[in-house]
Amino acid sequence: MINKIENLLQGFQSGNKKSLARFISLIENGNEHNYLLLDKIYAQVGKAIRIGITGPPGAGKSTIINCLTKRYRHLGKTVGIIAIDPTSPFTGGALLGDRIRMNELASDEGVFIRSMATRGSSGGLALRTHEVADLLDAFGFDIIFLETIGVGQAELDIVDAADSIVVVLVPESGDAIQAMKAGLMEIADIFVVNKADREGADRAALQIQQALEFRNHNFDWKPPVLSMVANQGKGINLLEQNLEEHANYLASHHRRQNMKKNRIEKYLRQIINEKLVEKIWQPALKKKMEGQIDKIKQKKKSPYAAGQQIVKELLRNKIKN
Amino acid sequence: MINKIENLLQGFQSGNKKSLARFISLIENGNEHNYLLLDKIYAQVGKAIRIGITGPPGAGKSTIINCLTKRYRHLGKTVGIIAIDPTSPFTGGALLGDRIRMNELASDEGVFIRSMATRGSSGGLALRTHEVADLLDAFGFDIIFLETIGVGQAELDIVDAADSIVVVLVPESGDAIQAMKAGLMEIADIFVVNKADREGADRAALQIQQALEFRNHNFDWKPPVLSMVANQGKGINLLEQNLEEHANYLASHHRRQNMKKNRIEKYLRQIINEKLVEKIWQPALKKKMEGQIDKIKQKKKSPYAAGQQIVKELLRNKIKN
Repeated sequence: MINKIENLLQGFQSGNKKSLARFISLIENGNEHNYLLLDKIYAQVGKAIRIGITGPPGAGKSTIINCLTKRYRHLGKTVGIIAIDPTSPFTGGALLGDRIRMNELASDEGVFIRSMATRGSSGGLALRTHEVADLLDAFGFDIIFLETIGVGQAELDIVDAADSIVVVLVPESGDAIQAMKAGLMEIADIFVVNKADREGADRAALQIQQALEFRNHNFDWKPPVLSMVANQGKGINLLEQNLEEHANYLASHHRRQNMKKNRIEKYLRQIINEKLVEKIWQPALKKKMEGQIDKIKQKKKSPYAAGQQIVKELLRNKIKN
Repeated sequence: MINKIENLLQGFQSGNKKSLARFISLIENGNEHNYLLLDKIYAQVGKAIRIGITGPPGAGKSTIINCLTKRYRHLGKTVGIIAIDPTSPFTGGALLGDRIRMNELASDEGVFIRSMATRGSSGGLALRTHEVADLLDAFGFDIIFLETIGVGQAELDIVDAADSIVVVLVPESGDAIQAMKAGLMEIADIFVVNKADREGADRAALQIQQALEFRNHNFDWKPPVLSMVANQGKGINLLEQNLEEHANYLASHHRRQNMKKNRIEKYLRQIINEKLVEKIWQPALKKKMEGQIDKIKQKKKSPYAAGQQIVKELLRNKIKN
């Protein structure tokens, strides 16, 4: 196994995309060597610009990423794309179609696309995505896109790891007050009203502008609200410019350093929480659980009391294998 | 504080709904006494039938719950409803409308409705929902509805705690293959194709039927696929009958006992994982983190190595307050 790992690392370091793909799979499957591997490439992490794109299914996120990628490629930059698939029946067939459309890009050597499934990943998806973004960063991609639908805390956690966050809405997305409630006003660096040739686009943009007035003012970056018709390429230019301005803003205001510290802290927290939970589930604990389950079933004990007791014992190192 | 807790418990035990509501708030806010309280009422948990209703925004979940609740009330049963609000901008205004419509029920003494926000709950939402369901159960409600949109693992975890799971789709929900991918075929006990007066309803039902053929066959319950026009009350009768049949099935096949054991195990696991993570974040660990963050920032260490080291020390009880 160690030999295989060495080979994988060598392949990765020499820019082999197959090694990269295999590396990602190891991470996704939670292979026991994953942290050994990630540790070895961490020195190379930190050069890429990470752009989070979030919004409802069908808002045109993939189309926008598609267009931006072509522009970045034109400028000679390489692009990695991480698409979080909600593996849900409720997104209709759109996702699949987008993937197929994106496959145009897949034949380009300077582009790498990876879908990650939400199904099965119990809460650890944000961490997993961050790890994969680190991999793409270390591999040398200049730009990394993180694409998610913005429903729920888990998805917001994912884009939180990006340098710039673009929130894509459509005129019918519903009112901006809901966006505010969802915390999007706080995390968005740039708003896009896509499909702006539809009715209500101006009103939607105006509502977002108004909602932004209520935003927390300890930022000196005011998120622009851009109108766009991505599938006709309209407005992509402007988005690219705004992304560049935001990158400059981060650099010039030393915000990136601050952000970096916060991000590292959050990242380390996630790692500690997840690894701790991973480590405790050894045979000794499982055996301990069995006895407690019977007691709970017989109503001799509540799961709350049982759980707290086990946690206490774990932290006193009293459950040993 | 202890006095307040005693008062709250007394109010709860005597059937005071205000005490119930306050109790739920304590749970939601993760009050330190929450487990003490839950422990005290656990002996009364276990009588209610829990029904999970999941499906995309706009499928008519609230309308269906509304109709079913009226029927159950007619039969003299009391009903508790837990609605998981995704607090997302992408559900449009529908949710709000549903809540208002549901408020008709709120004036009925035998009905209790509670919305729970996904925002802010970092992964612990399934546990929180389970705890609140236990509360409603102990309070004495005969039927408990758990309503979620079925996107992502977190939401599936929530309905997993139900006795019967109803998946609501509409003719336009997209093909059944996607539902299969999302794991809904495995968890659904009853399928509903709502808004069945729209085009494509028969085809949608047929597709679900076909997809069910591929379902894991170690169950002897075959999920029915029901057509419904909930806002005209059409098909509610049949759904109620099927829910009763499923409840009988669980009772007669001793499945409920088995399910109960699995549920307790999963529940205890969630409690242990969450309480453990809660317990470790004391000042000593935070201080320890600070030093590591600087090293990571200077690239002297990777977050992976730092995280693993901290976890090791935690489990050896080497980080003490």
